[in-house]
Amino acid sequence: MSERVGAAASLRSRFAFNQATAKYWPLPDAVAGCVAAGVTNIGLWREPVAEYGLDATNALLRETGLSVTSLCRGGFFTTDGWYDDNRRAIDEAAALGTPVLVLVSGGLPAGSRDIDGARERVADAIGQLAPHAAACGVTLAIEPLHPMFASDRCVIVTLGQALDIAERFDAGTVGVTVDTYHLWWDDQALTQIGRAGERVAIFQIADWATPLPAGVLTGRVMPGDGCVQQRRYLDAVTAAGYAGPIEVEIFNEEIWARPGAETLQRAIDGYLETLR
Amino acid sequence: MSERVGAAASLRSRFAFNQATAKYWPLPDAVAGCVAAGVTNIGLWREPVAEYGLDATNALLRETGLSVTSLCRGGFFTTDGWYDDNRRAIDEAAALGTPVLVLVSGGLPAGSRDIDGARERVADAIGQLAPHAAACGVTLAIEPLHPMFASDRCVIVTLGQALDIAERFDAGTVGVTVDTYHLWWDDQALTQIGRAGERVAIFQIADWATPLPAGVLTGRVMPGDGCVQQRRYLDAVTAAGYAGPIEVEIFNEEIWARPGAETLQRAIDGYLETLR
Repeated sequence: MSERVGAAASLRSRFAFNQATAKYWPLPDAVAGCVAAGVTNIGLWREPVAEYGLDATNALLRETGLSVTSLCRGGFFTTDGWYDDNRRAIDEAAALGTPVLVLVSGGLPAGSRDIDGARERVADAIGQLAPHAAACGVTLAIEPLHPMFASDRCVIVTLGQALDIAERFDAGTVGVTVDTYHLWWDDQALTQIGRAGERVAIFQIADWATPLPAGVLTGRVMPGDGCVQQRRYLDAVTAAGYAGPIEVEIFNEEIWARPGAETLQRAIDGYLETLR
Repeated sequence: MSERVGAAASLRSRFAFNQATAKYWPLPDAVAGCVAAGVTNIGLWREPVAEYGLDATNALLRETGLSVTSLCRGGFFTTDGWYDDNRRAIDEAAALGTPVLVLVSGGLPAGSRDIDGARERVADAIGQLAPHAAACGVTLAIEPLHPMFASDRCVIVTLGQALDIAERFDAGTVGVTVDTYHLWWDDQALTQIGRAGERVAIFQIADWATPLPAGVLTGRVMPGDGCVQQRRYLDAVTAAGYAGPIEVEIFNEEIWARPGAETLQRAIDGYLETLR
């Protein structure tokens, strides 16, 4: 086997299908679809897992041998009951055997203009959760979202900010999520990936295209259909020491309206096309 | 007069109405509306000036004594004919007697993923335009736009990037536009305003609210109706030495649908409420 074929095979084996990409594909169907496509990694979301049942999900995973690359998501530290909810999220991640719980911090409290305070609160919240995460062997992966989400979803908008918080804790307990969709605009992102080193807990890709839809959440497109140089971010996380799974995670109404198996295949194709 | 009343009076006198805030208010009506409201500063856009006529606009300005605080806009360096068009924009700014031409760089060329290259091209373009700007006594004010515009409108998305380019030139020739709407998410913005110093060529305010509309351009709201701490940016530009006009510039379909005089009054009220 040539080196090039080997590299391609290795890239293929690192592919992970984040189930949000086919939002309406029932969990058992998504699992079966992955198995049928030779995909061995899946990223799960708490809501569909809860709907199908945590035990039932685990049984399915054991049966199929699929690995759960991450659980989405904890965070939203400004909502009532955030602490208990995040503890449960950590427990669920541990139960599913995934090493990573993705954290999206949440935005500003209603009526607040105190973004500095909200950011400090994220650090406090993670400090409160870190001992339980460490006890469960789950890494909390702070995800910076694109700055267009700063007010309503995530006050952490750069990898630098995520690392400023993560570095207060043990690297095995608090890391970062590197998602090309959220970071591509940032001329500091590649440098910050280098800074992150072993704190890169999960690597996700999606592509950027305009015009953005109303609400902007569902504007992502398949890798290769937008303007992001996906490959240079893979090179950067690789140089930082990351050799783990690579999730494709897309939120897009048109893609969600397609059959799950078709979406999975498009994700694999776009992934291979942009990363190899 | 107490110091506090003096400060308020001074703030009131620095108010500038960017005409884009009342997009469909004809230029002579907007000028008359400013005069009626005791507003002495207006920010103009090239298209309505061209429609009304440059000479006619100038006659109106002489007659009313209104100052033009900035002309929007040059830039879009990836479009055909950018060089000639930007030279004309500089000429128009000089003819209108405004010291500032706002520059919005433009996004990625169609089909391109080379954001680094596009950013370097902005620096090259400004280098080509700087001699003419200097000869005309017009400051080119590079405006970083919010990162959600990175691909289609403006590859320059932080004040730091704008300054990296501006600092290659004389401060009187190339400065920056500080707009709170575009910078509020950036935890480096206040520091970068300090770095900017005399390069702050124009200060604009608008407020951030969600959900963003489709296309995201028209999501801005009046100062005070969103989550931006306007005042701390005024404090920062003041500390940097800026004592010039402060433009309110809003793009919002609902606001555009209202009578111009009402919009102007709302802009004044929101400005005074958030900045004093």
